[in-house]
Amino acid sequence: MKRIAILGPGLLGGSIALALRAKQGVEVRLWARRSEAVREAREMSVAALVSDKLEEVVKQADTVVLCMPVGAMPAVVSQMLPFLDPDALVTDVGSVKLAVEHALSPILKDRALFVGSHPMAGSEKAGLIHARADLFNAATCIVTPQEGVTSPEAVTRATEFWAALGGRVRLLSPRQHDAVCALISHVPHLTAAALVNAVNAQLPLAFNFFGPGFRDTTRVASGLPQMWTEILIENRAEVLNGLRALAAQLENAARILEGTPPADSQTFLPGSSGHDELNTFLTAAKSCRDNLRGG
Amino acid sequence: MKRIAILGPGLLGGSIALALRAKQGVEVRLWARRSEAVREAREMSVAALVSDKLEEVVKQADTVVLCMPVGAMPAVVSQMLPFLDPDALVTDVGSVKLAVEHALSPILKDRALFVGSHPMAGSEKAGLIHARADLFNAATCIVTPQEGVTSPEAVTRATEFWAALGGRVRLLSPRQHDAVCALISHVPHLTAAALVNAVNAQLPLAFNFFGPGFRDTTRVASGLPQMWTEILIENRAEVLNGLRALAAQLENAARILEGTPPADSQTFLPGSSGHDELNTFLTAAKSCRDNLRGG
Repeated sequence: MKRIAILGPGLLGGSIALALRAKQGVEVRLWARRSEAVREAREMSVAALVSDKLEEVVKQADTVVLCMPVGAMPAVVSQMLPFLDPDALVTDVGSVKLAVEHALSPILKDRALFVGSHPMAGSEKAGLIHARADLFNAATCIVTPQEGVTSPEAVTRATEFWAALGGRVRLLSPRQHDAVCALISHVPHLTAAALVNAVNAQLPLAFNFFGPGFRDTTRVASGLPQMWTEILIENRAEVLNGLRALAAQLENAARILEGTPPADSQTFLPGSSGHDELNTFLTAAKSCRDNLRGG
Repeated sequence: MKRIAILGPGLLGGSIALALRAKQGVEVRLWARRSEAVREAREMSVAALVSDKLEEVVKQADTVVLCMPVGAMPAVVSQMLPFLDPDALVTDVGSVKLAVEHALSPILKDRALFVGSHPMAGSEKAGLIHARADLFNAATCIVTPQEGVTSPEAVTRATEFWAALGGRVRLLSPRQHDAVCALISHVPHLTAAALVNAVNAQLPLAFNFFGPGFRDTTRVASGLPQMWTEILIENRAEVLNGLRALAAQLENAARILEGTPPADSQTFLPGSSGHDELNTFLTAAKSCRDNLRGG
């Protein structure tokens, strides 16, 4: 790992550059499509070489990191193929992995080593201006080998790359990765937005009475809509799976409530039908939630 | 407001007692059913008089605050009727209000002034041990007059009572109150539990990859199951309304995702059908969420 080409000058690309800048014997190069972005990156001295020419940045690089939006990756990869060293490792930082695997593996077959990556860091603030050398410090970095396709060497080198930035590497297949992220990030995001929209549709007056519970439950709904729209659409198959799993749980809770005695305190008996089932539902959730490490 | 009877020695009753203890010319009395609770409250000197005899506590009190579980209120109110001063204000701290209104107003008609209250404070830690004199300081206290039933004097006196404890009083009808609390507290609580249960049912491995978004979105799922079971069942009509509103929003999001192009980055076009609708969905939520005061 001596010559690193970072393609895309956003929060993640910029943070990778800053993290590597201080390392001895590593040459960091950064590619940006827009001349304004090139100027900004040069002013911030984030890399030894900043250019809008793919050839200058990619030539003789041993590691190429794709840091642009997932939808832009295939065109850039096709464009850089002529300059790519056949021993180079190509990886990416996209937040969905099966679509990236399907799009890039065929293009890069026999042209370079490829494996997808997803460093789970810094989704809230976009742009080079927020880049930090320590962004990946202790962050979980998921590397996603596809069985029968990805070479072990690609996995080893991607692991070394993220470990050098301070990341904690975990391996998941691309499909597993997408299912995991749908469940712990994408579906909760949509759910927070749906909760806010439901209050707004039903009784906007209620917003005046929010407390810490509502504040926390809906915090992620303040995320950048455009960024999240792309993530949700790119991972739509697994997001839809997750939404169905959530809907089943909510229907379960509604069914229990519908079966409880009328909400009249004179006839309400703790322990009556529905009470135990709802208590079981909430206890199961509490038990999982309490077990989250550092949660 | 000279002689206050607090019935129920939990977090809320204890905190009311502690808040009033320091006030000149106010006699605080506390009733607890269990002799152990009486002993504990006496040891903590939370009130001038602590007793398990309703007569001793309620007689000549000008304000009676019901601080027991909602389901226990009707029996206690019927029991204290013979000792109740006809000029006394009776209020409560239950977290649902229509059931309390329907249960207590008929019993107290012509026997005392009654209006329900809900001080929105301290739902996480139960018990006298957690009581604090400043629990109601700056807390929203909802007073819930029922149109055509509640006397204006009851509303005035309940307002003065909570204001004396530092609360910010807001008026809502009992039904409005229950709808508001369902939307900003009860449904979000069930949703957090449902999200955790969905992950557990679908792919428990995903718990190992949670980040700050999942942590916040599901925090309330660690609440006490038994307490929340009672709240949810007591307010089940409005909780079911809120769950239906949430389900409609989630179905809307799923329908948009189902209509988007396949999740293949080579054919994905930002701005294509579904993209704009999802962006609108998330932007609407962000706009409401960003407007929460102090959120």
